[in-house]
Amino acid sequence: MEYVLSERVKTLKPSAIREIFKFAADPSVVSLSAGNPAPEAFPTKAIAEISAQLLEKNPVGALQYSVTEGYPPLRQAVSEFMKNKYNVGRDFDDILITSGAQQVMDLFTKSVCNEGDTVICEAPSFIGSLNSFRSYNCRLCGIPLESDGMDLKALEKALQTEKNVRFIYVIANFQNPSGVTTSLEKRRGIYELAKKYGVMIIEDNPYGELRIRGENVPCIKSFDEDGIVVYAGSFSKVLAPGMRIGYAIAPKTVLQKMIVCKQGEDVHTNSWAQMVACEFMTKYDFEGHLASLREIYRKKANFCMDLLDKYLVPTGISYQKIDGGLFIWCRLPDNAKISMTEFCKQAVLNKVCVVPGNAFLTDEAEQCSSFRINFSTPTDEQLEKGIKILGRLASEVL
Amino acid sequence: MEYVLSERVKTLKPSAIREIFKFAADPSVVSLSAGNPAPEAFPTKAIAEISAQLLEKNPVGALQYSVTEGYPPLRQAVSEFMKNKYNVGRDFDDILITSGAQQVMDLFTKSVCNEGDTVICEAPSFIGSLNSFRSYNCRLCGIPLESDGMDLKALEKALQTEKNVRFIYVIANFQNPSGVTTSLEKRRGIYELAKKYGVMIIEDNPYGELRIRGENVPCIKSFDEDGIVVYAGSFSKVLAPGMRIGYAIAPKTVLQKMIVCKQGEDVHTNSWAQMVACEFMTKYDFEGHLASLREIYRKKANFCMDLLDKYLVPTGISYQKIDGGLFIWCRLPDNAKISMTEFCKQAVLNKVCVVPGNAFLTDEAEQCSSFRINFSTPTDEQLEKGIKILGRLASEVL
Repeated sequence: MEYVLSERVKTLKPSAIREIFKFAADPSVVSLSAGNPAPEAFPTKAIAEISAQLLEKNPVGALQYSVTEGYPPLRQAVSEFMKNKYNVGRDFDDILITSGAQQVMDLFTKSVCNEGDTVICEAPSFIGSLNSFRSYNCRLCGIPLESDGMDLKALEKALQTEKNVRFIYVIANFQNPSGVTTSLEKRRGIYELAKKYGVMIIEDNPYGELRIRGENVPCIKSFDEDGIVVYAGSFSKVLAPGMRIGYAIAPKTVLQKMIVCKQGEDVHTNSWAQMVACEFMTKYDFEGHLASLREIYRKKANFCMDLLDKYLVPTGISYQKIDGGLFIWCRLPDNAKISMTEFCKQAVLNKVCVVPGNAFLTDEAEQCSSFRINFSTPTDEQLEKGIKILGRLASEVL
Repeated sequence: MEYVLSERVKTLKPSAIREIFKFAADPSVVSLSAGNPAPEAFPTKAIAEISAQLLEKNPVGALQYSVTEGYPPLRQAVSEFMKNKYNVGRDFDDILITSGAQQVMDLFTKSVCNEGDTVICEAPSFIGSLNSFRSYNCRLCGIPLESDGMDLKALEKALQTEKNVRFIYVIANFQNPSGVTTSLEKRRGIYELAKKYGVMIIEDNPYGELRIRGENVPCIKSFDEDGIVVYAGSFSKVLAPGMRIGYAIAPKTVLQKMIVCKQGEDVHTNSWAQMVACEFMTKYDFEGHLASLREIYRKKANFCMDLLDKYLVPTGISYQKIDGGLFIWCRLPDNAKISMTEFCKQAVLNKVCVVPGNAFLTDEAEQCSSFRINFSTPTDEQLEKGIKILGRLASEVL
């Protein structure tokens, strides 16, 4: 049978990162290409404890159908946490628990974009979200990222010239893949531009709690008095990604449509996971846990940056120090003798796997001289081994 | 701000059943309107046991990111089960674990339907799936259900006259809401018509294991030698719906696109739930559990049908005996003095909640003289009380 496929999926490809995972699955290859939280960051004992109590005391609650909006005590706990700690959420907002933050991008795009509408995003940006936008046949318009966030002039120009722009997609904290943190000034600038041109913002903040140095920068959503920002939060990096819990804090009018879409997509998010997350947030030392995560990632990030300084920087590869998150963006020197793509291929042949930077562009065919390193998944030994190999390779081929 | 919404969600409404749930939440109202499995059908002890072992022995596996396709041992266990027991799955097929079977409808529609394409479904049919199709701006074409399945003449006519028909949606076993089981002859007829007119079939089978009498009728997917059927399976009724695990067994070409869409939707299904389901299927007496479920529902269904015979049938309300599933479809007499909608409203005022049949039609404004009763969620006492009230009401107003 010749299958008829929808226009929207015809050009949709599996994430390039997944293809790289095939190499990474080879145990002799050091993978610096993943984005998994460090396994030691999971509060496994607490989760086991909560889960056991839950399945003993309220098994039907954990196993039965529940409401699409999410487990009410979890919705309340997250709302209060985000309001008190980050001033996120107004009376016109409401909260929806999703099956991971990825679903926020999906439901929001489905609710506000017609096919052919334009989504503005940072260039580079998180490939999972880009693919979600692509899956609704949106046109992507990438705005170059500077060391403190999007180029606001380019953003304004895009808002003036692009047709049917529906929203701007921003990862303001420790962006994936670039590691860039958008400055307060630029956060305000993005907000004002969105307001001026009548488009919405989706602020994706999976790494916000993983700051390893410096002061917290207020979320864009924290100055949303106009109801134009959808905030996407996640438990994947602060609890466990396999539980697939995220949330949207968004103006009710839009959230109502997202809820109806979620009903048709997966009815509701796994009940057990929602209840475990709620217990962990409210009955355990959640802030203490977050502090311990920061400590884990601070150590790992600093260890990684030290290795980069020692083995890569001397070869001409440069990178911007990060303030948090899980990723570092490395750039080949301008006079490199081989392309970034070729360098990444050579790296795989030398048993180290990194992600070619063009995977994160709106057009993968575009030129890119950077690659992404992840330091949260590998052990210290793997990190050291991998970066040493990259350094030796760089000194030979660049 | 005036929000711009996508065309596809503009007319999308929350499920009518959810609106009814608001009444049902009143503890003084007897709810016969839900679709929840009986809580006593959950193997809570086994789930607690498996979960505890899992979180002790392999916490990282249960909590870390995993692959979009699903937990490999679960994919294998389900594939073998469906192949051995139901002859479902060929070499050209593969399996994808989804976040509930609802996600199969979503991913399949997204992968094969352009906006405006036509989906043929039974009339009445399951509202959750209809809303999923609607959310991609599909046109719905309902084919009247007869006591043994779709009217094949009407089906062929629709295939001849409707434009851009992409697939036929069928719940062949103990259909929701009608309780109808499609005969083997009609299953073959639907398959042959789909083949003849070059459209696919999505066979949704959430209740297949809940047969309370008679012999199993082969799935449509079991005679799919042409790769035109997508089979949607679910753990919601055989394990627990709060876990949100379903699956698609479908031709690889289509499944590949569904996988890419799932990546952008929720990355993967909750890892813990997949591993628990796998352990339960492979290390416990799964067939024994299924037999015990059938026993629970056989008792409940027969108890309900006895009550209907005693209290409703004498008032002129009729229904078709069911062979399984969770629902019974009751029809007001042709000469009823009030409309079905009015009857359902009166029922709520008398503290019993049922679902008006028009909620399950492709056009809710259409005339309908039936309503749906669920017998799995209420206790025996509630069932008896509710049906007695309906009987008294019917004798007064019909």
